[in-house]
Amino acid sequence: MEHVKDAMAKGTWLTYRPDIKILDCTIRDGGLINNHMFEDGIVKAVYDALVKAGIDYMEMGYKADKKIFAQDEYGRWKYCDEDDIRRIVGDNATGTKISVMADAERTDYHNDILPKNESVVDAYRIATYIHQIPTALDMIKDAHDKGYETILQLMAVSIVQERELEEALQVFAETPVSAVYIVDSFGAFYSEQVRDLTVMYMKALEQTGKEVGIHAHNNQQLAYANTIEALIVGASRLDATMNGIGRGAGNCPLELIVGFLKNPKFHIRPILEAIRDVCEPLKAQMEWGYMVPYMITGQLNRHPRTAIAMRAGGAPTDYVKFYDGLMEEES
Amino acid sequence: MEHVKDAMAKGTWLTYRPDIKILDCTIRDGGLINNHMFEDGIVKAVYDALVKAGIDYMEMGYKADKKIFAQDEYGRWKYCDEDDIRRIVGDNATGTKISVMADAERTDYHNDILPKNESVVDAYRIATYIHQIPTALDMIKDAHDKGYETILQLMAVSIVQERELEEALQVFAETPVSAVYIVDSFGAFYSEQVRDLTVMYMKALEQTGKEVGIHAHNNQQLAYANTIEALIVGASRLDATMNGIGRGAGNCPLELIVGFLKNPKFHIRPILEAIRDVCEPLKAQMEWGYMVPYMITGQLNRHPRTAIAMRAGGAPTDYVKFYDGLMEEES
Repeated sequence: MEHVKDAMAKGTWLTYRPDIKILDCTIRDGGLINNHMFEDGIVKAVYDALVKAGIDYMEMGYKADKKIFAQDEYGRWKYCDEDDIRRIVGDNATGTKISVMADAERTDYHNDILPKNESVVDAYRIATYIHQIPTALDMIKDAHDKGYETILQLMAVSIVQERELEEALQVFAETPVSAVYIVDSFGAFYSEQVRDLTVMYMKALEQTGKEVGIHAHNNQQLAYANTIEALIVGASRLDATMNGIGRGAGNCPLELIVGFLKNPKFHIRPILEAIRDVCEPLKAQMEWGYMVPYMITGQLNRHPRTAIAMRAGGAPTDYVKFYDGLMEEES
Repeated sequence: MEHVKDAMAKGTWLTYRPDIKILDCTIRDGGLINNHMFEDGIVKAVYDALVKAGIDYMEMGYKADKKIFAQDEYGRWKYCDEDDIRRIVGDNATGTKISVMADAERTDYHNDILPKNESVVDAYRIATYIHQIPTALDMIKDAHDKGYETILQLMAVSIVQERELEEALQVFAETPVSAVYIVDSFGAFYSEQVRDLTVMYMKALEQTGKEVGIHAHNNQQLAYANTIEALIVGASRLDATMNGIGRGAGNCPLELIVGFLKNPKFHIRPILEAIRDVCEPLKAQMEWGYMVPYMITGQLNRHPRTAIAMRAGGAPTDYVKFYDGLMEEES
């Protein structure tokens, strides 16, 4: 059974891959469920656990434009004001970096992103759909010039044409970003597709020193499997959330990826504590995780918004009606 | 992006793989949660859905020895008496075959398994741990001589030594079984290990015409990913359950595998109906699916019984205490 031995050997090798960096987006992606209305106690508990667990990045939320998103509709982690972040992390004298996501066309980045020397934020993740790339490039330049690490999230890759994706990667190679993520916004990818995309991203960026990352969703119970697949092929930036919390079907569970890596840099026990103390109580107020409607949108390569609306509506378990409705649209 | 095209091509190829056979074990593996006490209405609804969905086999339960397992403690699907099965399926004039699982050392097979011409059962799946193989071989002979298709489930392969496994496969190659399953009883395997085991099983059985199957558990959210992995390498017998129902973390969800295959032989809509009408109401009485304690036993390659007991006990969310307890045992 030599093949099995090879697999084991790869496992051991992974143990010592120093390039692996985990970004926890429990509060950021979880915030998409509750309009970013997490109380300070919850955010602090997550932060403390991530620091103890040795997680590389904690993403606090979005840097949304207050002129577009009214403050009476969203919690503070929609905006990530400096004072709010500092109330949780102080000067953040820890090994865990702080990141914030900035959506193209939804961020007043020139005004709202402070110079790095006035901020405890370490990195901005610029999230962009393919048609917003010109704006994203200006956002990257702005944040980079202000002194931040910049990271690029090209959203919804499962609906991007191959030729456009190749062009986009060539453009990204010229930017100062430290990493480019494969973002499976719709939870539509199978592991083979993730493997091939990872190879494609790595090839496009190999001369630049930039790293490849993976952000997966669990619509088809593949978020963790796809994350491992990308990792094995060479991705080194891994997104995860505690207990898989996140919009719709949720994300790659942090406890699974840390348990898999067996990397001495990471510790699972503080994560289990936070799942017990933070995620379990949240389940009474928020819903996330694999459910049939999310599977259906994932398999159809569609945004989960219809499935989210269905779960919040009057017939949250009428999977047949939901399926029939989408099938009618497809035909 | 040629690799992606290859992946797509494989997907299309899968569409027409006529050797793929799905066995639904909703009632059999789900019965491990409720001591096999399903009402007839539920079993009938599952049967009707599977027939409509074009699923190849429905597994009804176990053929347990009534001298070992008292009938006042278990429901009728622990024993699968002929009359009980016929009350659901009549003469089963459908394309869905009926299978029953028979555990080595827990079945009075000589007496309780009728000759095939007196039974509506099509196949017996003989489940055996490695040390019970001599008994399993006699059970296979008995059921085969009586006229049944026989299928072999070697349990808990993740704790079987490689040399013993190779010997076992050589022995199985000499039996009349139609298929041998890779059974990940503890939900311990990663996809690479499943791939290598599938290759090993196929190689050992390639001259015999026997097929390779996969029965996965979802402790690490990999039941479906591992099932696809085995399928792609060449396994053609796939176990699944509706909505992943099954002991502990549950099984590979039938809706996911049918959605993936896009095989015209299978239909997803009757499965969605049954999930809505059968599985959703059951959730009020039975618990299954991914949870942290099952992840922990899976990663430690242990039987889920401690995790099941923990969930049924007084501290069902104290994941830290559970983890600490198992870590202490390991040290």
